Amino acid sequence: MAQIYDRVALIGLGLIASSMYWAIKRGGLAKEVTGYARSQATRETARGIGLCDIVCDSAAEACDGADLVVLCVPVGAMASVAAEIAPVLKPGATVSDVGSVKKSVISAVAPHLPENVHFVPAHPLAGTEHSGPTSGFAELFDNRWCILVPEGADADATAKLRAFWEAMGANVETMDAEHHDLVLAVTSHTPHLIAYTMVGVADDLRRVTDSEVIKYSAAGFRDFTRIAASDPTMWRDVFLTNKDATLEILGRFTEELFALQRAIRTGDGEMLHDYFTHTREIRRGIIEAGQDTDAPDFGRSGTKAGE
Amino acid sequence: MAQIYDRVALIGLGLIASSMYWAIKRGGLAKEVTGYARSQATRETARGIGLCDIVCDSAAEACDGADLVVLCVPVGAMASVAAEIAPVLKPGATVSDVGSVKKSVISAVAPHLPENVHFVPAHPLAGTEHSGPTSGFAELFDNRWCILVPEGADADATAKLRAFWEAMGANVETMDAEHHDLVLAVTSHTPHLIAYTMVGVADDLRRVTDSEVIKYSAAGFRDFTRIAASDPTMWRDVFLTNKDATLEILGRFTEELFALQRAIRTGDGEMLHDYFTHTREIRRGIIEAGQDTDAPDFGRSGTKAGE
Repeated sequence: MAQIYDRVALIGLGLIASSMYWAIKRGGLAKEVTGYARSQATRETARGIGLCDIVCDSAAEACDGADLVVLCVPVGAMASVAAEIAPVLKPGATVSDVGSVKKSVISAVAPHLPENVHFVPAHPLAGTEHSGPTSGFAELFDNRWCILVPEGADADATAKLRAFWEAMGANVETMDAEHHDLVLAVTSHTPHLIAYTMVGVADDLRRVTDSEVIKYSAAGFRDFTRIAASDPTMWRDVFLTNKDATLEILGRFTEELFALQRAIRTGDGEMLHDYFTHTREIRRGIIEAGQDTDAPDFGRSGTKAGE
Repeated sequence: MAQIYDRVALIGLGLIASSMYWAIKRGGLAKEVTGYARSQATRETARGIGLCDIVCDSAAEACDGADLVVLCVPVGAMASVAAEIAPVLKPGATVSDVGSVKKSVISAVAPHLPENVHFVPAHPLAGTEHSGPTSGFAELFDNRWCILVPEGADADATAKLRAFWEAMGANVETMDAEHHDLVLAVTSHTPHLIAYTMVGVADDLRRVTDSEVIKYSAAGFRDFTRIAASDPTMWRDVFLTNKDATLEILGRFTEELFALQRAIRTGDGEMLHDYFTHTREIRRGIIEAGQDTDAPDFGRSGTKAGE
């Protein structure tokens, strides 16, 4: 694959940035990749495992001369990082990010940037429950979506960033920030909050039932715990910065949950059966859209398709 | 492995019964296995794929002369099946089941059974989102839990059933019915209801956002859709028959969700961060308990551990 940028700077070295580095190397997409993390321990780890060609001791140093700067820090840290790097940005450079919300990132970052750089926000819809510099791998973005929110950015800069994400394996779509935040509130943010809640409830009860909640978690609960194991700082920032859309979807969720709860209380089996039949069909849609495996139990070891 | 029962009857031929059949065959645990399903189409399918040594046209016929009868029908169908088979049960036979709730199964089944059979309720904590006679596989119970609820049943009959489940690959525990129903309300029933609800909410919104909810489901939502794709009849019966424990856990869930919702609304980042840090630790407990894989994203194809 052809080189797309001369020099790429990755600010923040967690799961997404480290996966980007390995995907860039896999495709030969940049001549040089610099990196920076706020924590010295993370920088040491990155140097130890050869993550980034140069790990710098400041964000400004890492961004100096970069053609593409990607902010891979929690959403709540975007504004201060943008302020710090703004003075050293190369004229004509592209600045992007990987934040899970877009409206608040745009309002945090855009005011700090000079006129002569291109700001093209992005959000790769990929992740695992692991975090930190050692959690990345080159295949993370393969066949996953990356949403660009160019909002009037330079067409050439946008096209180049699109090519970059496609070369890292992603399928790219563009969207406006408001719509992005609503869609993500449904597909990601609210499900995460609910999973966190359910795990919290179970933990309360664990004190009553000893370790049984963990012991018998395979019955459905363990899928929630995986979702609820994601990075706490990242998710705190997501909820604080996508507040309106999350609260809107949570409101709908509670309304719906109360309807089902009422059906249980009143013994309305027909309502429950209809509801569950309908949700089952939605699963089929996701399989058909190629966004998950049809292997039972996600193909965890020891299971296979019916004989 | 040694033969444990002469003749086993499986009543209902869905995911659990068909998996039991293949596990019995794998271990040579019975001389003969009979099967029955209410639907003629299911019986035809079972005959077509060689599921059970004999597929009978009535439950009574299948149970005639059986040393072990396992009721693998939805919880709501247990009482009528028990009434139907009671007259033909062999003296000294063991009757068991695989229902997801135990108190209501016991009160539905026990009154119908003659004095001279042993009733040992059971619940294997294993499943996939698939259902029906073709969905079973021999390894379903390997390293999963099976909970026996003997409640004063004959010790020899209980020991034999325990050996049978262990030979099918499961780890066996005993518990009283009330406690079982509470633990399962936390680890399974409430998580399922919540997943159903979230998928329902998303579907409402899908009409607004077209197919985007499905398209971008990998961001967390798809794990909910898998859970919400389980058999509608089975789950309707679970909620109707484990009503009290489910409503109790739902009450706690709603309380907790409102606390998190309030933290989002008021911008209490510290509360959110503490909560998410805590739930992350619970995940570690489950990995250490050997009840899930630590592979990122459940080891779905294309992902692997960090480089």
